[in-house]
Amino acid sequence: MTTNPTAWRHAGSEPSPSTLEDIHAWWRAANYLSVGQIYLLDNPLLRRPLAPGDIKPRLLGHWGTTPGLNFLYAHLNRTILERDLNALYITGPGHGGPGMVANAYLDGTYSEIYPDIDRTEAGLSALFRQFSFPGGIPSHASPETPGSINEGGELGYSLVHAYGAAFDNPDLLVACVIGDGEAETGPLAAAWHGNKFLNPSQDGVVLPILHLNGYKIANPTVLARIPDEELIALLRGYGHEPFLVTVGFDGEDPLESHARFAGVLDDALDRIADIKASAATGELVERPAWPAIVLRSPKGWTGPAVVDGLPVEGTWRSHQVPLAGVRDNPEHLRLLEDWLRSYRPDDLFDDGGAPLEVTTALAPVGQRRMSANPVANGGQLRKPLRLGEFREHAHPVVAAQRGATNAEATRTLGDWLAEVIRRNPDNFRIFGPDETASNRLAPPVYEATDKQWNAEVEVGDEHLASTGRVIEILSEHLCQGWLEGYVLTGRHGLFNSYEAFTHIVDSMFNQHAKWLEASLHIPWRAPVPSFNYLLSSHVWRQDHNGFSHQDPGFIDVALNKSPDVVRVYLPFDANTLLATYDHCLRSVGHINVVVSGKQPAPQWLTIDEAIEHCARGLGILPWAGTGDPGTEPDVVLAAAGDVPTLEVLAAASLLREHVPDLAVRVVNVVDLGRLQSEDQHPHGLPDREFDAIFTPDKPVIFAYHGYPWAIHRLTYKRAGHQNLHVHGFMEKGTTTTPFDMVMLNDLDRYRLAIDVIDRVPGLATRHSTLRQELQDARLRARDYTRRHGIDIPDVADWRWLAPDTTPAP
Amino acid sequence: MTTNPTAWRHAGSEPSPSTLEDIHAWWRAANYLSVGQIYLLDNPLLRRPLAPGDIKPRLLGHWGTTPGLNFLYAHLNRTILERDLNALYITGPGHGGPGMVANAYLDGTYSEIYPDIDRTEAGLSALFRQFSFPGGIPSHASPETPGSINEGGELGYSLVHAYGAAFDNPDLLVACVIGDGEAETGPLAAAWHGNKFLNPSQDGVVLPILHLNGYKIANPTVLARIPDEELIALLRGYGHEPFLVTVGFDGEDPLESHARFAGVLDDALDRIADIKASAATGELVERPAWPAIVLRSPKGWTGPAVVDGLPVEGTWRSHQVPLAGVRDNPEHLRLLEDWLRSYRPDDLFDDGGAPLEVTTALAPVGQRRMSANPVANGGQLRKPLRLGEFREHAHPVVAAQRGATNAEATRTLGDWLAEVIRRNPDNFRIFGPDETASNRLAPPVYEATDKQWNAEVEVGDEHLASTGRVIEILSEHLCQGWLEGYVLTGRHGLFNSYEAFTHIVDSMFNQHAKWLEASLHIPWRAPVPSFNYLLSSHVWRQDHNGFSHQDPGFIDVALNKSPDVVRVYLPFDANTLLATYDHCLRSVGHINVVVSGKQPAPQWLTIDEAIEHCARGLGILPWAGTGDPGTEPDVVLAAAGDVPTLEVLAAASLLREHVPDLAVRVVNVVDLGRLQSEDQHPHGLPDREFDAIFTPDKPVIFAYHGYPWAIHRLTYKRAGHQNLHVHGFMEKGTTTTPFDMVMLNDLDRYRLAIDVIDRVPGLATRHSTLRQELQDARLRARDYTRRHGIDIPDVADWRWLAPDTTPAP
Repeated sequence: MTTNPTAWRHAGSEPSPSTLEDIHAWWRAANYLSVGQIYLLDNPLLRRPLAPGDIKPRLLGHWGTTPGLNFLYAHLNRTILERDLNALYITGPGHGGPGMVANAYLDGTYSEIYPDIDRTEAGLSALFRQFSFPGGIPSHASPETPGSINEGGELGYSLVHAYGAAFDNPDLLVACVIGDGEAETGPLAAAWHGNKFLNPSQDGVVLPILHLNGYKIANPTVLARIPDEELIALLRGYGHEPFLVTVGFDGEDPLESHARFAGVLDDALDRIADIKASAATGELVERPAWPAIVLRSPKGWTGPAVVDGLPVEGTWRSHQVPLAGVRDNPEHLRLLEDWLRSYRPDDLFDDGGAPLEVTTALAPVGQRRMSANPVANGGQLRKPLRLGEFREHAHPVVAAQRGATNAEATRTLGDWLAEVIRRNPDNFRIFGPDETASNRLAPPVYEATDKQWNAEVEVGDEHLASTGRVIEILSEHLCQGWLEGYVLTGRHGLFNSYEAFTHIVDSMFNQHAKWLEASLHIPWRAPVPSFNYLLSSHVWRQDHNGFSHQDPGFIDVALNKSPDVVRVYLPFDANTLLATYDHCLRSVGHINVVVSGKQPAPQWLTIDEAIEHCARGLGILPWAGTGDPGTEPDVVLAAAGDVPTLEVLAAASLLREHVPDLAVRVVNVVDLGRLQSEDQHPHGLPDREFDAIFTPDKPVIFAYHGYPWAIHRLTYKRAGHQNLHVHGFMEKGTTTTPFDMVMLNDLDRYRLAIDVIDRVPGLATRHSTLRQELQDARLRARDYTRRHGIDIPDVADWRWLAPDTTPAP
Repeated sequence: MTTNPTAWRHAGSEPSPSTLEDIHAWWRAANYLSVGQIYLLDNPLLRRPLAPGDIKPRLLGHWGTTPGLNFLYAHLNRTILERDLNALYITGPGHGGPGMVANAYLDGTYSEIYPDIDRTEAGLSALFRQFSFPGGIPSHASPETPGSINEGGELGYSLVHAYGAAFDNPDLLVACVIGDGEAETGPLAAAWHGNKFLNPSQDGVVLPILHLNGYKIANPTVLARIPDEELIALLRGYGHEPFLVTVGFDGEDPLESHARFAGVLDDALDRIADIKASAATGELVERPAWPAIVLRSPKGWTGPAVVDGLPVEGTWRSHQVPLAGVRDNPEHLRLLEDWLRSYRPDDLFDDGGAPLEVTTALAPVGQRRMSANPVANGGQLRKPLRLGEFREHAHPVVAAQRGATNAEATRTLGDWLAEVIRRNPDNFRIFGPDETASNRLAPPVYEATDKQWNAEVEVGDEHLASTGRVIEILSEHLCQGWLEGYVLTGRHGLFNSYEAFTHIVDSMFNQHAKWLEASLHIPWRAPVPSFNYLLSSHVWRQDHNGFSHQDPGFIDVALNKSPDVVRVYLPFDANTLLATYDHCLRSVGHINVVVSGKQPAPQWLTIDEAIEHCARGLGILPWAGTGDPGTEPDVVLAAAGDVPTLEVLAAASLLREHVPDLAVRVVNVVDLGRLQSEDQHPHGLPDREFDAIFTPDKPVIFAYHGYPWAIHRLTYKRAGHQNLHVHGFMEKGTTTTPFDMVMLNDLDRYRLAIDVIDRVPGLATRHSTLRQELQDARLRARDYTRRHGIDIPDVADWRWLAPDTTPAP
């Protein structure tokens, strides 16, 4: 898949005066429609003088950034027409929603997907009214906005989304407007280095447009207040060729602004065409300095210059609503009417309210419209992955000898992912913060692909190449954002990370979950591939890295988001991980949080059992328990997570040996959603089935991977909730051994067995000696592991159980 | 408080050969001690040939970054002696722990605070053994490490911590080593712009030292693989004067490396001295280009060059343990012995095991030692704030007319904070992501101070100045990290943020909480001032900004951390906010999460009542309920949070009017910790008291600010838990009105009153008509608010309650 190098070039001359007029008409119309959305309930075309009743009772929205966004949109339209560009428009400046909507309306896309908002005066009224209005649309470029893949609510992710969209889209131009406010955020500041990973031939182009209008909410911005030479140096330092242009100040004639900016944009696009051409012919060997535009324009450009004696246009005072008292203050009302009429609406819209031909002369057609580009509605482009047969990569488990062989679950997964990579060379990627090997997806994955890298390469580098399905940078933000951009444009992938540090992207996760939740209610948005996490190097095996690396709380963040979007899976061995990930890679519209260890650990289920168990999401492990499976047990030992399951199985084994008449049922939970009630989660188990598994009244000792309260939160409506005793991570961590970690947090096999003895009526009296022996064995094991600085002989050896078998080191 | 300009300058010449030898001796010793920590259990001075039994059974730790850190430490020591510098050493590279410990041991500090690790052979054995060993110390520069304020576990915060430490410490040099791995993170990439906020006269100096050893875990780093001209441009773009230096490659004589680096360091420090001098005289008017050093040195420098035929020194293979098989592989054992002996330990330590004089010739003394600088143990420097009298800023509430007056709680707080600022001009700061005004701490705060800003200023700017107690940048990461650095060095402050976007710093919060928790167990660390959050612009009043701004889940992240560290407060009016914040600003060692609205809202408690209520943390509001306060109620209406309390009070009022014989108790919870059991939280209410307030068996309808499961998680051990019905944010948000927000999430007054009717036995039958009227009023209010795009006449007007009073718009 390579690009057509001629597609990017425009052989023509600079734009003619009439083209500049066309740009200006579009810009005026977009600005008019933007102001209308912020202010007007009625009288959308000013057929009569503005009256207080025409004004919304509550003025919301953000004018400041909008004229700049509209300006850029108009200019990009010209170049799309002239160069037949396939362009996506990403707007970072948070509240630019009215502008995005205005342009999509002028494009015609808006009326196509929202037929009530047609190209009539009534349609205009509806367009204006819905903006930031109950039952209407948000003030940001939200999922409801055609052409957008980037919410403007939480700032900082435009550029990383742009790169995510550009990967494997060789013919795509992603024009990414970066607000000078969001440019101060960490994720944005790091995202500039995306160009070190882009392949000029097989990926698309990101054109960053740093929009300096100078102000945030109430402050100037840093990048607007450093000298030009520093700004130029900064962009060169990021690896770009900067194109600086300033427009709109000191009463500049707008046609001059248009002419100057059009020239700069053409220069930048010509430079892109050069790079693309030399990449296509193979001449390009070094990383190119892609163009980046810096546009300085006044904040609130074309808005009221002065309000109540204070300057507004060109200052932070135009950030939101420049005229706040329009309903009550006749002077404000007059200023608003002047402002609206300054765009000459009568020259832009016909009598019926439709845009005149001159207004939309520059509109591209069909999918060339940035608001209708299918990459911004990526579900339309989604092709299911060719997954091959994951069963062939299963770890061989013999039912008669469960636990007898060890495997690293993530390496088994990696073995299959290598096949997925081979079968899907252009729409599946793995992102990781320099941990793909550490998380043991490699070596297998690097037998199938390399790490894509376009910075310098030195002798001795391994698995770095100009193309590759793995991309690694030490930034969870960038990994998260790249994958978001990649799946929102219809492709597939996963993000693997150390469990604790996934918290770094909590807020990005939240925003992506909200985007997907909102999208569920937008019929024209086709479901996109799921976002898949693989959280490895988890809390229980971070004994060596210590307390700072021990945090299983990302699950809790995930569980707070919509159950229609979020899924949390805790496979407990290699085969359950395979079965889980097969489901994840097939699913759409979800965020799948999968937690799995990477260390050698005993294997329990055959692949067929694993598939069945994961399909159920939870179930009894009949081979692990005691007593008649058809009757109610005395106690339930439940587990979710690989290490907790190991400890539960070991506890069950201890009990089988020492209290053979006790009926112990062992339950494993892979899909946390099953624990919730039917009315709380689409996977929620009916109460009857829940009670059949967990019993309504027997003690349930639950060993859980994360913070124990999560299990209470999920099950508080269940009949047996007061009999539920959860052991989990209690924030008791340090640098120690794996066994000491479970002991510190009361999750170890001995403690679980003791808890059973304490909770089952009568056992404590009858088995007080055993209880003491277990306690002694526990302390002996702890002492052993602490003294020698190693684990008990093999923490994975669940047979190392008996109180009297402590070996010499 | 201004600096002494002569203190920074050194009039001497370049270091003599003997000084270079001293540097080299220190470096060799520090490297030797670092390798020893990673490998040795015994035989610390190689008095006999290394044997497998001398080697730790489990090899942990990270060699790669360590020799570079040791190199810098040695060189900084020289300049401290020569210039009498007051220097703090911050090491970003994650796992440089062995180096930090080694240097603190050579300094003598380590043995002073850990007497068992004395300067004998036995002390050395203990030093080595404890590293990354159960019961020992972590592999990072953790709280256990003297001289450190920066955990190396989660990467990216070194530079932002450095600036936090430098603010208001005019004589302090913060030498901040930035790993080229962490340099890829977002927070680090943004942190460079801290120099736009530093005041050269009244703040200290940050000297960034970007350490390019070229590799992360398994990959090269981006900044090591861009051309020098891009790197130089990048640093200039960040506003620095770059000093590039490369040492240690191609078998360079180490003394040449030392000489060259010493020259560069002197140049950079001389430049700093120039800037400080011109700042002190007032000559400096523009923002200076502070020096930044770029040090290229081989990863794993001085370690084994080749192991098993593969290059190790200078590659990513030296990231962790270059020789992995030492216990079993005689060749590895031999290589390790050669490596250790290459530092010539016999020339560095005397027969007893103490460092020889030549080894520590460059050691500064006392608090000039970087490991003993009191700023790195900030609790020692803590001075309590002069808080004035917050009562004087109280909102006047008349008990007979509660709810009759409105106030913006955060503005009332701001009014008092202005006084705190005036009384504490050099050790209290407010950080915010451009939201201090939006969160309404201003205007009052800006009457007392300005926003500190050292970038360009233009006509029309307001409240920007070269000095000021408020610092704002649109990066939650920087706000969080600056305040962390500020409090860890003994000063006070708060971070105000939109509630939803506080999730951006979840992981930084986690790490700070872990730092504080670990510090509790380290006797020599004096408690530092608490880290105070003010989460405003909260979920219930983000109706206008919509779904992306609606997230109360930061509380849940906070509650997962140690109850000995974290406090969560939900004051419900201006006076409870004042009383809460008074407590927070006096407290030490905590992280206080305070959530408070900023919108005009009715006021409930007199300041005396507020103080008493907040001291209790929760309590009955006797004036709001019905029935005899001395007897058990029929139902408890509980609330935590300002909007939930308003709705509960309104529901109670509805019930008082329409079901006057019902005994309703109204309870408000400010301190969430009170809900937990005594054994779970130090603030936990004894069961008896809990039952006395909430009853053990009556229905409790609980209106909660955040996700409702949090209340279940806190109370699941309480007797009445199954009678508890929590209403909270159910992730049902959109762009709408405040009233619609509470309705969408079933938190509105009507729904609460209906829930009471449904839950109190017999009421639903007796009051079926009222139930229907409430339901009708609910839908009428919803319709009203949605149709007109405004709130019900005043969502803050709790008297707008009756089903039949829907006004015309």
